[in-house]
Amino acid sequence: MFEKYDLTKTIDDAMFAESLPPLKARLSVLQRTLRDRDIPVIIVIEGWNAAGLTMSTKEIIQALDPRGFTLHATDNPTDEERARPFMWRFWVKTPEKGRIAIFARSWYSRALAEKLSRVGWKKSLKDEIISINNFERQLSDSGGIIIKFFLHISKDEQKMRLMERERNPLTAWLVTPRIWDFHYHYDTYLPIIDEFIENTDTDYAPWHIIEATDRKYTILKVYSYLVKTLEKKAASKSEEQSRKGKLKSTTSFPKNPVQRRSSPVSSHSKEECQNMLDNLQIEMLELHYLLFKRKIPFIIVYEGWDAAGKGGNITRLARHMNPLGYDVLPVAAPNDYEKQHHYLWRFISHFPKAGHFGIFDRSWYGRVLVERVEGLCSEPEWQRAYQEINEMEQDYVKSSGGGIVKFWLEIDKDEQLKRFKQREEDPLKQYKITEEDWRNREQWDLYDLAVDEMLARTNTRYAPWIVIESDDKWYARVKTLKNVIRYAGELL
Amino acid sequence: MFEKYDLTKTIDDAMFAESLPPLKARLSVLQRTLRDRDIPVIIVIEGWNAAGLTMSTKEIIQALDPRGFTLHATDNPTDEERARPFMWRFWVKTPEKGRIAIFARSWYSRALAEKLSRVGWKKSLKDEIISINNFERQLSDSGGIIIKFFLHISKDEQKMRLMERERNPLTAWLVTPRIWDFHYHYDTYLPIIDEFIENTDTDYAPWHIIEATDRKYTILKVYSYLVKTLEKKAASKSEEQSRKGKLKSTTSFPKNPVQRRSSPVSSHSKEECQNMLDNLQIEMLELHYLLFKRKIPFIIVYEGWDAAGKGGNITRLARHMNPLGYDVLPVAAPNDYEKQHHYLWRFISHFPKAGHFGIFDRSWYGRVLVERVEGLCSEPEWQRAYQEINEMEQDYVKSSGGGIVKFWLEIDKDEQLKRFKQREEDPLKQYKITEEDWRNREQWDLYDLAVDEMLARTNTRYAPWIVIESDDKWYARVKTLKNVIRYAGELL
Repeated sequence: MFEKYDLTKTIDDAMFAESLPPLKARLSVLQRTLRDRDIPVIIVIEGWNAAGLTMSTKEIIQALDPRGFTLHATDNPTDEERARPFMWRFWVKTPEKGRIAIFARSWYSRALAEKLSRVGWKKSLKDEIISINNFERQLSDSGGIIIKFFLHISKDEQKMRLMERERNPLTAWLVTPRIWDFHYHYDTYLPIIDEFIENTDTDYAPWHIIEATDRKYTILKVYSYLVKTLEKKAASKSEEQSRKGKLKSTTSFPKNPVQRRSSPVSSHSKEECQNMLDNLQIEMLELHYLLFKRKIPFIIVYEGWDAAGKGGNITRLARHMNPLGYDVLPVAAPNDYEKQHHYLWRFISHFPKAGHFGIFDRSWYGRVLVERVEGLCSEPEWQRAYQEINEMEQDYVKSSGGGIVKFWLEIDKDEQLKRFKQREEDPLKQYKITEEDWRNREQWDLYDLAVDEMLARTNTRYAPWIVIESDDKWYARVKTLKNVIRYAGELL
Repeated sequence: MFEKYDLTKTIDDAMFAESLPPLKARLSVLQRTLRDRDIPVIIVIEGWNAAGLTMSTKEIIQALDPRGFTLHATDNPTDEERARPFMWRFWVKTPEKGRIAIFARSWYSRALAEKLSRVGWKKSLKDEIISINNFERQLSDSGGIIIKFFLHISKDEQKMRLMERERNPLTAWLVTPRIWDFHYHYDTYLPIIDEFIENTDTDYAPWHIIEATDRKYTILKVYSYLVKTLEKKAASKSEEQSRKGKLKSTTSFPKNPVQRRSSPVSSHSKEECQNMLDNLQIEMLELHYLLFKRKIPFIIVYEGWDAAGKGGNITRLARHMNPLGYDVLPVAAPNDYEKQHHYLWRFISHFPKAGHFGIFDRSWYGRVLVERVEGLCSEPEWQRAYQEINEMEQDYVKSSGGGIVKFWLEIDKDEQLKRFKQREEDPLKQYKITEEDWRNREQWDLYDLAVDEMLARTNTRYAPWIVIESDDKWYARVKTLKNVIRYAGELL
């Protein structure tokens, strides 16, 4: 892509002085429009070292109301970030609805910095391109706007600028050997960056290459692309939204290959199960130490009918784990703050760090279960979610070196009724049963269909579903624990 | 304190089996009661290495609903935490109303680990005791409960346990040379820890020393203290709250020594000011680089009458600063999520990290201005706030090595009217003026009194107030910039 750009372009003072103020005014108005329309915006500023990233960032924010944007300077990851999958640090910084997030350097610079120096970088960069495109597409699909700039200067221009910085004692210390190293290999990196940009230049998140030799030309070009793209995208977003809202429902999906059963094939006494549990818990304790030591994370998802026994199951699972090495993440309806973000945001933010277990008591599958059945999201939204969830899970497994296992706790409809009544009669358990549980029960058939579709569409090699026959609580506890040990054990 | 404890205490199996279940049930009910009453709880678990901290933590959480607590394992600070004042990482983790935060090790272990190995540790530990007591008192005053446990074992017992861990290949790697080092110096640390505990054993946050030789005895004692203290505290909190609500107002406060003037003594032309600004902005740019390089943070607080020109003033101040080195933090009314925390929490969370500027466009002073005048907090709450704010600012300056300067932008009442009208007439600025501004203006005299009291009570050596005569916008910009350069410059 780079060869077609003319790096000698400049602009004269008069033209600059005339053109900039109206663009600033338009951007300022646009910010308020997008805020009122709840559209989140991501602006990525990338480019060669010394190409003017800071200068351009400074110029853009001149026109913006500080109440509505956040600037993220992307540098080496912190320890906290290093203990998570690659895209985690960016996911958690995605803007709320109506806000602008500016990334001065981003996942692009980091992918280059962190992948290029490793064995197998070509493959790993290709994987990264898939992750990045998925990430950007998902944000765009949920109504966000993404605009990306690459500030382009020649090798000679870069050398001149770096030397200038080195002559100034205030800035000399910022020109590190690493930056010079990158400069010397400008010609090596050029085609790699070119290809990277070309493969991530999409409809939903286009790149704008800026010839950044002349300061004024750069500012004007950044501003005019920004204003034009935001205006165009803002217009097309509203069309898309309404078009998406009208998508027709499709009820055909592959047959669910995961067999659902509420009782185990062969029967087990409570005592047998308790004996097995005791032994399994010791295995689990040992496994937990080993995963912790090797910094391998693991996600366990619990979904299931109300009163299927998720809570008790989780307690038994965790019984002999070190509480400092796992988190139980109970998932309720999103709060107001969480609703301002992409629906996956609140889950990704809580993904376990290296060496830890994250046990989700309900999860992102709420999108295709309760949100689908209760109409809390539109049909195109939950239809899209199967793919988004598969991508997210695959990305997690690939980039964290960890694993995911998902349990569906199945009980019989009559068994549920029995348990509901038991809860109502027990004063210590009454608080566990609410009107909502009864309402959900009335929708059993709709949920049933949703569960089938979920199992069919999201049972993957890297994040399998296991159905737990939970009419028998004790058997259920043995089976989950066995499967955690099996799947997590495979990672050692 | 330690000598009076008998480390040979044990408990028999029958007694244990009988006593524990009812305590667990009571704790479980207490958790729901405290949740319903919106009372946040902090449980601190400290003690000698291998004294059973993990085991005790595991036991406590058995009885708790995972929806209502968070467990924080405190270890070495992350990079992010290291770039902030010592107490920051704990402040940001204080629980929301109605939730329990369990700290497995806490500010106590970290103060010992981080201060003891430094020159001047005695003085520094004394300072830390003041900070910690302030922190705990502030949380308690705002309705929180704090319970602290220290698990005590003898040196011989510790040695035996560490050796046992070393013999097990699963846990051997956890017994680091540092832990052995701490063990060898058990007798040196004992009196230091003793004094530390004694000086932080307060009514509002009492310590419980647990003789932790026998596992069952430890669990039972932790549980019974926990249940007893929570029950007692929960009862006394409600009394306190109502008593506090009844405190009588006191309108006498020291005369405000900070002179308030809305116009400068001598007049300056716009051109003179702009020239001065140009030069000051270059100084500011250089200063910013130097502070950044030396990792010194700086907080600037802007308060002032509506339409006093805070926004424009901030823009001019930041004009030549590197956008990656400062944040403008616009402060509005707290959102629902922020309201669940201590009122200082949302500000402390955004304190700038090492080398950065944090520019607050309105601030924690809202407590003694808008919240006082509009009755958004009780009188005892804002009366208490002066001291709390002074403590917080002093703590920040001391523990970050940075500085704070606070600007009060003063304008004349007539000047405000003129500006309100100008805004209403300008289509581009109309959005800036709302009904609320007019309502606030009607309360001018009440605000006036509140401003005087604020300046009188919170103008300190380490965080001074500077009144900015803002009838003349240009002069105001020059004066703020000059003062930032002066106060931040002193830190170099």
